[in-house]
Amino acid sequence: MNIPPAFLAELQSLLPPSAFSLQPAVLESYARDESSQPAQTPLAVVWPETAEQVAAVLGLCNRHRVPVTARGGGSSLEGNAVPSPDGIVLSLERMNKILEVLPQDFQCRLQPGVIYDDLNRRLARDGLFFAPGPSSGDVATIGGMIGNNAGGLNALRYGVTRDHVLRLQVALADGSLLWFGTRAMKTSSGFDLVRLMVGSEGLLGVVTEIVLRLHGLPERKTAMARFETLEAAAQAVFEIMSSGIVPGALELIDENSIAHINRYKGWDWPETPTLIFEFHGAPSGIAEEVEMAREICAGLGASYFEVAETPARREQLWAGRKEITNAEKALYPDHIMLKGDIAVPLSHYAAAVQKAQALGEQYGLAVSIFGHAGDGNIHWHTLVPPSDAAALERGEQAAADLIRYALSVGGTATAEHGIGLAKRAFLLEEHGAAVEVMKRIKQALDPNGILNPGKMFFDERG
Amino acid sequence: MNIPPAFLAELQSLLPPSAFSLQPAVLESYARDESSQPAQTPLAVVWPETAEQVAAVLGLCNRHRVPVTARGGGSSLEGNAVPSPDGIVLSLERMNKILEVLPQDFQCRLQPGVIYDDLNRRLARDGLFFAPGPSSGDVATIGGMIGNNAGGLNALRYGVTRDHVLRLQVALADGSLLWFGTRAMKTSSGFDLVRLMVGSEGLLGVVTEIVLRLHGLPERKTAMARFETLEAAAQAVFEIMSSGIVPGALELIDENSIAHINRYKGWDWPETPTLIFEFHGAPSGIAEEVEMAREICAGLGASYFEVAETPARREQLWAGRKEITNAEKALYPDHIMLKGDIAVPLSHYAAAVQKAQALGEQYGLAVSIFGHAGDGNIHWHTLVPPSDAAALERGEQAAADLIRYALSVGGTATAEHGIGLAKRAFLLEEHGAAVEVMKRIKQALDPNGILNPGKMFFDERG
Repeated sequence: MNIPPAFLAELQSLLPPSAFSLQPAVLESYARDESSQPAQTPLAVVWPETAEQVAAVLGLCNRHRVPVTARGGGSSLEGNAVPSPDGIVLSLERMNKILEVLPQDFQCRLQPGVIYDDLNRRLARDGLFFAPGPSSGDVATIGGMIGNNAGGLNALRYGVTRDHVLRLQVALADGSLLWFGTRAMKTSSGFDLVRLMVGSEGLLGVVTEIVLRLHGLPERKTAMARFETLEAAAQAVFEIMSSGIVPGALELIDENSIAHINRYKGWDWPETPTLIFEFHGAPSGIAEEVEMAREICAGLGASYFEVAETPARREQLWAGRKEITNAEKALYPDHIMLKGDIAVPLSHYAAAVQKAQALGEQYGLAVSIFGHAGDGNIHWHTLVPPSDAAALERGEQAAADLIRYALSVGGTATAEHGIGLAKRAFLLEEHGAAVEVMKRIKQALDPNGILNPGKMFFDERG
Repeated sequence: MNIPPAFLAELQSLLPPSAFSLQPAVLESYARDESSQPAQTPLAVVWPETAEQVAAVLGLCNRHRVPVTARGGGSSLEGNAVPSPDGIVLSLERMNKILEVLPQDFQCRLQPGVIYDDLNRRLARDGLFFAPGPSSGDVATIGGMIGNNAGGLNALRYGVTRDHVLRLQVALADGSLLWFGTRAMKTSSGFDLVRLMVGSEGLLGVVTEIVLRLHGLPERKTAMARFETLEAAAQAVFEIMSSGIVPGALELIDENSIAHINRYKGWDWPETPTLIFEFHGAPSGIAEEVEMAREICAGLGASYFEVAETPARREQLWAGRKEITNAEKALYPDHIMLKGDIAVPLSHYAAAVQKAQALGEQYGLAVSIFGHAGDGNIHWHTLVPPSDAAALERGEQAAADLIRYALSVGGTATAEHGIGLAKRAFLLEEHGAAVEVMKRIKQALDPNGILNPGKMFFDERG
């Protein structure tokens, strides 16, 4: 497909030459995200540096009916950032300034291209942090986290991205540039456009500036418990969450995930279901919670409970969780990785984990199960050689079965990765006729359907 | 105005005779809410008992273009529930069943007409509570709290109503009945229709069933501190909130409010700026926080700091806060009460309190200032004889000046009461062109503008 010449001429008048590219190698490098969705090469990539440039590009695309896919770090997992082959990529990479840190208000103001870990390194100087804690924090941008309503390790205690966004500057499809929200900590003033934008996967507008709510950096202790069975580990999650403890993080890792980590890191961790905890708060409270958790784990037959006593050991325990995906990619570089991201109400957590394991057996797949257990979130992976069409189909089937199980107990098809391309069928299964309401809102804000078309819905371009 | 005969005939076919009324005395009793907005008598009142009846009534109203104002306890403060004179009131009073309590999931499912205090009495049997804590909890319904995104005494620690709503069944203007949301604790599945509905003041749909997220009932201690000056009390709020303490509640009461309480209750509390605290959590943490707060208050010259040692004393301290409005109504039964509900970022809190006091002096008004200080929320009242047009105008002017001050420092025109009729001009001042986006969403969901017309926007009926 070729870029329409009239569109290109106007684009060149809006942006300096360094702010866009038509080079095939560059376009290729923006053709996919971290999902297993097929690459789609865009017509152009633009790197605006100001909100006004973003708005002008959207207005131009709207007049020419050219699709626009906004892109942060490209780490989305469901094809959310895969561009349209007849559209452009609008990369926010160069809008990466932290504009203001307001420690007295527990707030900061920043551009959408700031990377999560970079932000937290800066905030630490003021004793603050932006809490969600995505495992991909070394590449994920705040704008991308907003697009997908990203969660992460610490969402359990502090909430997901949506709970932290106070104000957004947004460029709409028609090229207008607006502010939504307030810096007050609560408001009943009008419809909640901020939370509508968060998690809208680039379908309603492009975020150009952000005010986040922050938390004070807490004292923290990291701990690990090892169990005989996945069932016992999952039951421990439920009992801990019901006990009144509010962990900073509570992660489940199954034996297959540990095996991958061992091979990747050269470790010899016992290959058995494992929980990793973080306890946050005042020192006396932390000590109390550690003892409560230790007792609950012992009551469920945990063979091992360790509190990390050094920063190095703490880092190592977390590497055991955060590097699962990296390990699997390194060990099976040519495989397709199928991923699941369900969440269920807590009382169904243990059963859901068992269901995921049983589905692996039923479909003859090597499945690894892990995730943000404390909020009922289960991630699972299965690795399939691309040549094995039958295994791929069995994998898709198992993924669908697990999502349908989650929906049957009141859960969600995707807790933190979003719908993108991969989960569109399940948006409808989860929400039914409410999807029509979402489409009406999409139509109201982007009547020409230029914003990230083909994502979330199958058919929004009329 | 008379009810259209064709509409009435259809209404009679949809509902049993006991479910609607045309009697003038009944209509009069639904003509206003707790605001100072003028009464507007509706054409009819209906009391549906099922979600299907609600949806059928909306579908009927939509076909006949008859306005519908949904109503819970009628305790809204900005005219949010004042009906249209050419429309009907849809009262949810009879849909007041708690359908299910799910202690293992920290959730409950209920109808919108359940009264806040009734819900918490039931939940206490399972050691749970729905946290926000509106002062009007003896009359406010959960449906009304959702309409206004109500806050309250405990919103500071646990969040406002919006933070607690997981799922909603909603009847739309076209008579369809849909479910939004998930029972999972987090989700990235589609647009966030739940939070869009919360705070939409009955303009987008009528909530017919609700799943709430609950918290475990904490240990709690109530305390009171008295200060020489309002400035010192407000500064204490800022220092406490910056110290890492997360109070269950933190309320400011000025000397005028205390004077009203004293006269109403026959008490003799020193008439001086006062803070009331609640500390929640584990006993050791509470003790630590009480001592930290006591020190901060002493450092700012507090002459008095008391921890309530009996349940009766605890009740009394809270009565001193919760009954301010009742006291003022009883003391000035014929006066018009002008009300403010701004919130500002915390670093501006002390200045905003001083500004409120200065505006009272500037305009020659007796002003009482109180509110949910910990989240930057200031309520203020001034009582004006209805015959004193000049004082009324000065009161309106002072209210407008304070809102403009709040907006100038990044705050909001209304933290928890909503826009209703009274704050419509400030919706535009606060959000500017973003109001057009709100209207586009309104148009998409209620194209005929039948849902609570005239509220929030001036002109949504095309």
